[in-house]
Amino acid sequence: MRHSMTGRNGGADLAPPAPFDPVVILVRPQLAENIGTTARAMANGGLFHLRLVAPRDGWPQPRAWYASSGADRILEEATVFETVDDAIADLHRVFATCPRPRHVIKPVMTARGAAAELRATSSRKLKSGILFGPERAGLDNEDMARADTLIRYPLNPRFMSLNLAQAVLVMAYEWYLTEDTVPEQYLMTNETHVATKGEVENFMTHLLQDLDECGFLHHEQKRPGMIRNLRHLFARGEVTEQELRTLHGVVSELSRARKIRHTKG
Amino acid sequence: MRHSMTGRNGGADLAPPAPFDPVVILVRPQLAENIGTTARAMANGGLFHLRLVAPRDGWPQPRAWYASSGADRILEEATVFETVDDAIADLHRVFATCPRPRHVIKPVMTARGAAAELRATSSRKLKSGILFGPERAGLDNEDMARADTLIRYPLNPRFMSLNLAQAVLVMAYEWYLTEDTVPEQYLMTNETHVATKGEVENFMTHLLQDLDECGFLHHEQKRPGMIRNLRHLFARGEVTEQELRTLHGVVSELSRARKIRHTKG
Repeated sequence: MRHSMTGRNGGADLAPPAPFDPVVILVRPQLAENIGTTARAMANGGLFHLRLVAPRDGWPQPRAWYASSGADRILEEATVFETVDDAIADLHRVFATCPRPRHVIKPVMTARGAAAELRATSSRKLKSGILFGPERAGLDNEDMARADTLIRYPLNPRFMSLNLAQAVLVMAYEWYLTEDTVPEQYLMTNETHVATKGEVENFMTHLLQDLDECGFLHHEQKRPGMIRNLRHLFARGEVTEQELRTLHGVVSELSRARKIRHTKG
Repeated sequence: MRHSMTGRNGGADLAPPAPFDPVVILVRPQLAENIGTTARAMANGGLFHLRLVAPRDGWPQPRAWYASSGADRILEEATVFETVDDAIADLHRVFATCPRPRHVIKPVMTARGAAAELRATSSRKLKSGILFGPERAGLDNEDMARADTLIRYPLNPRFMSLNLAQAVLVMAYEWYLTEDTVPEQYLMTNETHVATKGEVENFMTHLLQDLDECGFLHHEQKRPGMIRNLRHLFARGEVTEQELRTLHGVVSELSRARKIRHTKG
């Protein structure tokens, strides 16, 4: 996978912000780099709105721009608030990320469930936000009391260790997936196309004819089973018209070589 | 969310490796730090087996351990190969991550679809692996020709920019999810429990009695509708027995204060 695309992602390439898409709210973030990598993670999932509550080192910070891999527009449009209450005042629905919530009575959703809920909220033209806590301490109890719902990432309970940008990335990925329509599996065929059953049969006829000529199928009793086995092999998944042309060529060339050998011999 | 847990994750905490869980194969990785952050990402999703093909700076490298946040055992058990062919020789099924595949005829799966396939492969006791390319260039055409299936991450086509550990994290997360059984939403209740309908009705009786006493429900025609509205509010989602006790207290205290005022007045 080509991972880093720095320089290829101009701010101009980002989708125009949709007003009811979720707001990512970083609560008391410590390092400007992490604000930049958060913007990069957001852009991957098509999220745009970023709010900062009391960033430790002030705002703006050039180091955030260096770390954002070109997600500049997100940083340029980010807004700063003094308190969580200020940052969520205009929102209708607030989620808080929290890996090991304790001593609270609160709905808990998986990242996937929360993404579906965020999408539903957006389509009702209600504004939503997701709180992410500071790098080390995480959200405190006062922050969490302001959220409607906690988000739990299903991850290895023996080793749960995400950095801030990774935590944002998982939510951005799940958000993007809620509207992704690409099938879970398909055959990428590029310039060619999936072969029709007629095209496959045409190749089978060619193959069987040459195999008959060279005597591979001479055993009358075994012949039907051998042919069926070959059919099973070519019917296992999709094969393309281009691949069949290659196979026609392979069979023809192997036959030709045999015939030349026979003529010489 | 508490993000970094460095030092809390001793290698001893990692789950014992399952022999048919997928192998993460880093092809020609450049930076040792990225091998370490890859191990950390793997541990989050419960993946254990790591193979390195021709790591640029040799192996082992202390910087990988510094970057792994305690996923030491994964690094200690990592094995090194000279070529991709060597690294996959004992595997039955190989996936390759590839964000923008071109000019290949190959099945393409989403990360989610691939995770389900990896789980199915594992349960058939077949060994599988996932190829991740070098940081800048990604997998080359020869690498990809050795994979059965390409994995496409559904992400913003206008801004797709994952670093190596993030790419591994998405697959590790999807792998973990294939066996996660926690419901998409539930009410975390800790020491208390979701209230029964009888407990809710008990509170409603208390509330209505006090509201009748103070005259809030005196309008005979509006009374049934007002009561229904209150019922709707308390029936909107789950409420806990502890919260009802608090509400009983709130109502009693407000009533007591009113009665004292009345007595005084």
